[in-house]
Amino acid sequence: MGTEIERKFLLANDDWRGLAEGKPYCQGYICSGAPGTVRIRIIGENGFLTIKGPTRGLVRAEYEYQIPVADAREILANLCSRPLIEKIRYTMNFAGSIWEIDEFKKENDGLLIAEIELENPHQQFVMPPWVGREVSDDPRYRNSSLVINPYSTWGKK
Amino acid sequence: MGTEIERKFLLANDDWRGLAEGKPYCQGYICSGAPGTVRIRIIGENGFLTIKGPTRGLVRAEYEYQIPVADAREILANLCSRPLIEKIRYTMNFAGSIWEIDEFKKENDGLLIAEIELENPHQQFVMPPWVGREVSDDPRYRNSSLVINPYSTWGKK
Repeated sequence: MGTEIERKFLLANDDWRGLAEGKPYCQGYICSGAPGTVRIRIIGENGFLTIKGPTRGLVRAEYEYQIPVADAREILANLCSRPLIEKIRYTMNFAGSIWEIDEFKKENDGLLIAEIELENPHQQFVMPPWVGREVSDDPRYRNSSLVINPYSTWGKK
Repeated sequence: MGTEIERKFLLANDDWRGLAEGKPYCQGYICSGAPGTVRIRIIGENGFLTIKGPTRGLVRAEYEYQIPVADAREILANLCSRPLIEKIRYTMNFAGSIWEIDEFKKENDGLLIAEIELENPHQQFVMPPWVGREVSDDPRYRNSSLVINPYSTWGKK
């Protein structure tokens, strides 16, 4: 089993900009929630299918497989809930840790999330100065939640 | 896109027995229904992940990928709805067509289904003498339905 252990933060400022090139991500969900979530993702010209288990604390089972990008495009078009998640992902090294910053587009425009993937839930790391409030425990910031309740609609319900 | 076009029948008698060796199948569903169904299947020592679209008449979009059998075992154990489908599949040639007969076990014990996969919905084929009533249009006989409403409970609700 793959295991995903990650912490999520909002951004405190724009000082991270220019530190890395961004890559376009497009992803959607065939299903999300209990017992499992099935995600289709296209990064540039590569397609991936990912199965994730329920989140327990910061830890989540994860199984990822590369699939033909043509299949990924068809499945995103025909079998995933709307809206799809479109974002630019910036990957950068800070003090020996890999950080990913997602800049969301379309229905989630304006939302920025920084993530760090850890080896274990108690791992120490240096907090970059552009990282703000932690949102690891807030389910609204999950990508699968942003399909159901996009950022552009927050505070309007 | 792969496309699945199949017709399903009950069995009229046991005359097909002895025509083919059976292989054990174990499968489960991470999700089923609209817009897509995600199935995990183990055949002998091989694992597969299959995404199917909604059924339109006899036709259904299908995307299948081989995955490590260890992953398939974990996903079946932790992320699939109960009960799992366990069956023996017998594959045989009759008059130039490939037929598959599924002999269900456990919660679906007693159920036998014969399937023929077609190139197009109007394809002609010779009906074997051991094939009985067609059930292509009856959603109760779908494997994903047999998880929710197993054969052993039919007529008891």
